[in-house]
Amino acid sequence: MFGDERTAAESPKAQIRRRVTPAMVTFLAGGTGTPKLLDGVEAAFDPAEVTVVANTGDDVELGGFLVCPDLDTVLFAGGGVLDRETWWGIDGDTTAAHDELRRLADAADLATGPRYLPPDRQTAGRRIARWRRFSGVAEFMEIGDRDRAVHITRTSLLDEGHTLTDVTRTLADAFDLDVTLLPMSDDPVATIVHTDEGAMHFQAFWVARRAEPTVEDVEFRGAGTAEPTPAVRGALDAPIVIGPSNPVTSIGPIRALPGVDDALAATPVVAVSPFVGDEVFSGPAADLMRGVGLDPSTAGVADAYPFVDAFVLDDGDRTDLDRPVVRTDTRIDDERDARRVVDAVADALAEVT
Amino acid sequence: MFGDERTAAESPKAQIRRRVTPAMVTFLAGGTGTPKLLDGVEAAFDPAEVTVVANTGDDVELGGFLVCPDLDTVLFAGGGVLDRETWWGIDGDTTAAHDELRRLADAADLATGPRYLPPDRQTAGRRIARWRRFSGVAEFMEIGDRDRAVHITRTSLLDEGHTLTDVTRTLADAFDLDVTLLPMSDDPVATIVHTDEGAMHFQAFWVARRAEPTVEDVEFRGAGTAEPTPAVRGALDAPIVIGPSNPVTSIGPIRALPGVDDALAATPVVAVSPFVGDEVFSGPAADLMRGVGLDPSTAGVADAYPFVDAFVLDDGDRTDLDRPVVRTDTRIDDERDARRVVDAVADALAEVT
Repeated sequence: MFGDERTAAESPKAQIRRRVTPAMVTFLAGGTGTPKLLDGVEAAFDPAEVTVVANTGDDVELGGFLVCPDLDTVLFAGGGVLDRETWWGIDGDTTAAHDELRRLADAADLATGPRYLPPDRQTAGRRIARWRRFSGVAEFMEIGDRDRAVHITRTSLLDEGHTLTDVTRTLADAFDLDVTLLPMSDDPVATIVHTDEGAMHFQAFWVARRAEPTVEDVEFRGAGTAEPTPAVRGALDAPIVIGPSNPVTSIGPIRALPGVDDALAATPVVAVSPFVGDEVFSGPAADLMRGVGLDPSTAGVADAYPFVDAFVLDDGDRTDLDRPVVRTDTRIDDERDARRVVDAVADALAEVT
Repeated sequence: MFGDERTAAESPKAQIRRRVTPAMVTFLAGGTGTPKLLDGVEAAFDPAEVTVVANTGDDVELGGFLVCPDLDTVLFAGGGVLDRETWWGIDGDTTAAHDELRRLADAADLATGPRYLPPDRQTAGRRIARWRRFSGVAEFMEIGDRDRAVHITRTSLLDEGHTLTDVTRTLADAFDLDVTLLPMSDDPVATIVHTDEGAMHFQAFWVARRAEPTVEDVEFRGAGTAEPTPAVRGALDAPIVIGPSNPVTSIGPIRALPGVDDALAATPVVAVSPFVGDEVFSGPAADLMRGVGLDPSTAGVADAYPFVDAFVLDDGDRTDLDRPVVRTDTRIDDERDARRVVDAVADALAEVT
């Protein structure tokens, strides 16, 4: 399967005569779309040559520890412990601490909505947690007990003086990850959703408000002065795969870092559309794209991604694009699906490298 | 039982003809000695009139949240959820997060001893956690899952801008405490044990090193500039009961606050010796007293407590003191024992008020 010769039966695969899978490849990941795709990565790539750059704009500090949902989905999936019903958290985890946090708040009559720390605390404390620091009272995001241990370990290692990149490597070791997992930056970037009900961090919008407020704009606070890490810069020299992640809040924060779009323009990039035409597979991508003025469709994704050299679209997606397209069934419900889509990604990459 | 007349049969109780239990009374608490005594408080006092001032020198910040063992033992005992085998933590609590913290540290080959945050972090971050800030990696103290929720709630309320006094009141409400529980101060005080193996926070000495290093001195860092709260100052105007707590590390930090010893000298004080002669009931009191140059005995306690007006000693304790003594069986294994000792405390208080 890896670097073999074969003949594809139907157009546009018919054009592909010899597929050369690049030695190194970098996936940009956020939310659940790209992690689901990564389940099939071995169909076409050597995991030892795969780097995953994860969005950290969704991260929050909650009750004193840093939660990195997009790093953790990859970490837990790669470690074989992900809850694959929800695609976040650890399978079979308990919620004793979370339940007690809710009970205590109820018993003490404390409000249970997202409790931002006061404005002066948003830029005090750990630098990486800026602009998304929440009290743990009532814990508006459900954190499992084992999951919590990961956040505490991560936060403690940060407090000991390590970077998020270092810490992520340590956790990847602990979970026996076979790909290289990198946070997009060691600097703070906070995804703030501006809505008709005011500005709120992405997690407050998504978890607490279930994406109900109308999106008016999306801001990546801190991104202008944050730096992609040297490891990320290096990884962006390789061919890039953007999985079917939300282009606004999963991929947007990575792209908002200085130099990333230029790096993407300079290397072969394949993207898997998270839409089938104008139908999204899951998540808040449509509302968020609409909110930032993009058409919530494959065509809108293509407009948002001028640096993408080839797309993988669903068989049922008849969008006519100005760039090479490889079609397959892009719905990913299990590893078999993931391998099929990874195979299509490799086909698309072969076409543009 | 409350304010009744009765005749005691044997000396020195024979001297007591009428016991006037004061309306308000304040217990100084730390460790397990005084909390055990408080189990019987209703034998002689109206809980609504009882204030408990708890030591906070033992507190640590661990993995980002503030653990207050001496406050929590009173909180959990009063709330009916204390683990009465260990006299810390919540009965029947699970340890899923703690176990995973240990597993992660093991898997990532991280040292499991107490991990102090770097020196520059000891005085950064939350002011109240100064000089006792530990990384949560491998979590050298076992924190239960429900227990952890208490620490997170407390820490989050502190981060929201409340004082430890406010937060303790909120938690006391949540646990339906019937006495008033006060931290000794809203300022940082850290009990540092100086040993032949170097200086270490009390919890590192007691929990991690099981009191094995030889104690050379005990320091209450910060106490010179910390303030007892107004609520504590008010409570020190009432008659005082010092339970059978360790005089050095349980009561010492309270006494180290400016003005406390003067307040104790100005009000009636009864103390229950944690010794029977020179035998201590439990804990590291003997080693710590020796370490600070006190005789590890009831006589040494009396020397350390010049402001105590009357003592409650065990029937088997023949120490000859220069102050009034009420004797009873001072071993406290259950509530019945506690009520008996509280009764003796009330007898002693009646003698000096």
